[in-house]
Amino acid sequence: MKPGVRFQPIGVVRSPYKEPADLPPPAFAPPRFFERSAGEIEIFSDFAAGLDGLEGFSHIIVLFHFHRSGPAKLKVVPPGRSKPRGVFATRSPHRPNPLGLSVLRLLGRDGRVLEVSGLDLIDGTPILDIKPYTGRDRKSHIRTGWLQKKRRPGR
Amino acid sequence: MKPGVRFQPIGVVRSPYKEPADLPPPAFAPPRFFERSAGEIEIFSDFAAGLDGLEGFSHIIVLFHFHRSGPAKLKVVPPGRSKPRGVFATRSPHRPNPLGLSVLRLLGRDGRVLEVSGLDLIDGTPILDIKPYTGRDRKSHIRTGWLQKKRRPGR
Repeated sequence: MKPGVRFQPIGVVRSPYKEPADLPPPAFAPPRFFERSAGEIEIFSDFAAGLDGLEGFSHIIVLFHFHRSGPAKLKVVPPGRSKPRGVFATRSPHRPNPLGLSVLRLLGRDGRVLEVSGLDLIDGTPILDIKPYTGRDRKSHIRTGWLQKKRRPGR
Repeated sequence: MKPGVRFQPIGVVRSPYKEPADLPPPAFAPPRFFERSAGEIEIFSDFAAGLDGLEGFSHIIVLFHFHRSGPAKLKVVPPGRSKPRGVFATRSPHRPNPLGLSVLRLLGRDGRVLEVSGLDLIDGTPILDIKPYTGRDRKSHIRTGWLQKKRRPGR
């Protein structure tokens, strides 16, 4: 066995979406769906001191465990598409390491609870890390490969 | 013990920086330092098929293990600062879960080797996941809290 690394949840998501099926794939979500989608991230008390200073940031990067994903696949067919793509060219949850990443808007902080919008996570999702979103994460003139084809109007 | 999750490296970084000390903190790097900083990410052959389609993206999100980090801290003093901040309000490697994230420019792909720039990782860093950088990761009108204070000119 190759050397691995073990991570422990530092918190949990409180979301109106209780099951994976409650969340539309981004390409099929109504306009502004995720913008309006709000919830909370509760950080466990052992880690609460690590949040100090986060409230000054408008956006946070949330790393989480895709705890409801199926077996890992190397090729996946994205929702609404017919051609399989390499899983690392998609944001599919069925990854060799089921690590998820979302950039969320930080609406406020009440102690160890973060109010967020842009939420695309289901209730109970284990949180592994929170990072501030900075200018270095914001790239211009991006190309988005297969995602750029067959775009729906208004997106 | 709380339930945890175990991840295995899917690849490794080939970088000109051999030690953590070889990399300047972003706030102290010369202008365009990271833009010019290039290297490779080698994905292990078991996972190579997962890369198909990634070459169409200009930027990738790389999740890695901070394998040279010290013990976790909840408060850290960022380089060049005097005030301690919660670790989740910083990009410090000394995190409860030593997970790192960099958004890199994808210059090209040669089989299971990705040529990248923007590299801020040391040689031998274990890679846990690669994701395409999409429009949903690009946020406008961001506020960056304590980072916005005491900015150096030209940054």
